[in-house]
Amino acid sequence: MIQVIKIGGGILENEAQRNAFLRQFAAVAGPKVLVHGGGRLATTMAERLGVETQMIDGRRVTDKETLNIVTMVYGGLVNKQVVAQLQTMGVNAIGLTGVDGGWMKSVKRPIKNGIDYGYVGDVIEVNGAHLRILLDKGLTPVIAPITYSAEGLLLNTNADTVASQTAISLAPDVQLTFCFEKEGVLSNPDEESSVIAKITPKSYTQLKADGIVSGGMIPKIDNAFAAIEHGVQSVRITHASNLQGGTIIVE
Amino acid sequence: MIQVIKIGGGILENEAQRNAFLRQFAAVAGPKVLVHGGGRLATTMAERLGVETQMIDGRRVTDKETLNIVTMVYGGLVNKQVVAQLQTMGVNAIGLTGVDGGWMKSVKRPIKNGIDYGYVGDVIEVNGAHLRILLDKGLTPVIAPITYSAEGLLLNTNADTVASQTAISLAPDVQLTFCFEKEGVLSNPDEESSVIAKITPKSYTQLKADGIVSGGMIPKIDNAFAAIEHGVQSVRITHASNLQGGTIIVE
Repeated sequence: MIQVIKIGGGILENEAQRNAFLRQFAAVAGPKVLVHGGGRLATTMAERLGVETQMIDGRRVTDKETLNIVTMVYGGLVNKQVVAQLQTMGVNAIGLTGVDGGWMKSVKRPIKNGIDYGYVGDVIEVNGAHLRILLDKGLTPVIAPITYSAEGLLLNTNADTVASQTAISLAPDVQLTFCFEKEGVLSNPDEESSVIAKITPKSYTQLKADGIVSGGMIPKIDNAFAAIEHGVQSVRITHASNLQGGTIIVE
Repeated sequence: MIQVIKIGGGILENEAQRNAFLRQFAAVAGPKVLVHGGGRLATTMAERLGVETQMIDGRRVTDKETLNIVTMVYGGLVNKQVVAQLQTMGVNAIGLTGVDGGWMKSVKRPIKNGIDYGYVGDVIEVNGAHLRILLDKGLTPVIAPITYSAEGLLLNTNADTVASQTAISLAPDVQLTFCFEKEGVLSNPDEESSVIAKITPKSYTQLKADGIVSGGMIPKIDNAFAAIEHGVQSVRITHASNLQGGTIIVE
């Protein structure tokens, strides 16, 4: 069983949380893959460089200069720091973006309704065999969310999507974990102890009908079910400090 | 025969020269490795970020912030751009620093005569087997000159050294090529057509005695002979636009 674990950039920015998370990740047995975001580090770097971050509907617009910053910060700084730290913990990590080994291809998102997100990639092709080669050699891929197009454009890509697509490419013997800053899917958003232990398609329909699951959690869970439909065994949504806990989503 | 080719950052900064070089590199038959520098891009980025570049005897002092810049620019931006471009040329490139797969370890250069170069690495251990695994799978490693210490420090490392050490780790069936902005080792520094086609230990002694080879060329050639003493078959010093030309250094 391969574990694909996605960690948000927010956790990585905080040294204590990052160390705690990476120690847990290092302790996960068997073949594993880490997918990371970059969080506010790219925004901070853009500010320092005097590059304005343009947002449309809460999404960053990736102009050429922002793309370069994202490539530097996610693909260079964050990725190599995580790899170095994992190496000291005995994990033979190898940093990758989608272009390294040409394993995750995308297309530049088309302009729609007049909205141009710029250098953003929508994943179209994933070569899980490339990751398997590395995993078979005892390596642990650490993936920054940058993909590339047939024309050789680097493209900024949603890290949750990169994680799902990675897991799907390794199906069926794979489990996917999304780590974030809550304990899991909560039945009461103000109560961290109200974690829903397990969600199935049936219970999900009910949870939505009852208004217990709503807002930003819906695309996350939809995404999880999509991964399961494509052969991923289970998807876990949990706090970064509790890799075995949280909510498990199964068929 | 494995080809290890080192390209300076200067060539990569110029789009026309970079394209021409990469096309030549793509055409090299058989297993190959590219080692690149980052040139003035890191200095430019440091200037934009208001980080002062401190130099001692013409060498950059790598403080913590400069290290982050070097990691971003060489390990992120330059590396991924080159990999993407090679992918479009049909080369299955994979970007690496020394920490990816833990294959090139170094120690932080000790303070000597009161001079502290900061986060600079002196290579101590190279695992050629890691590169061979990738090469055997048809991958072409593209290496940024960053190594790491046992403590998990990323360390800025001389790209010529990274290239030599890479070639040595793959010896004996390996040839090393240093590309730079001259046609080769010249017998008359003002005359690009005065390339010395071949240098042996014996002819090198004579060239030095006659004052034909001097200055900055001496450490370059010494470095080449060191690689040969460690089993590398030959070392070529040539212009980036002429991978088959220049000066060849053999035992």
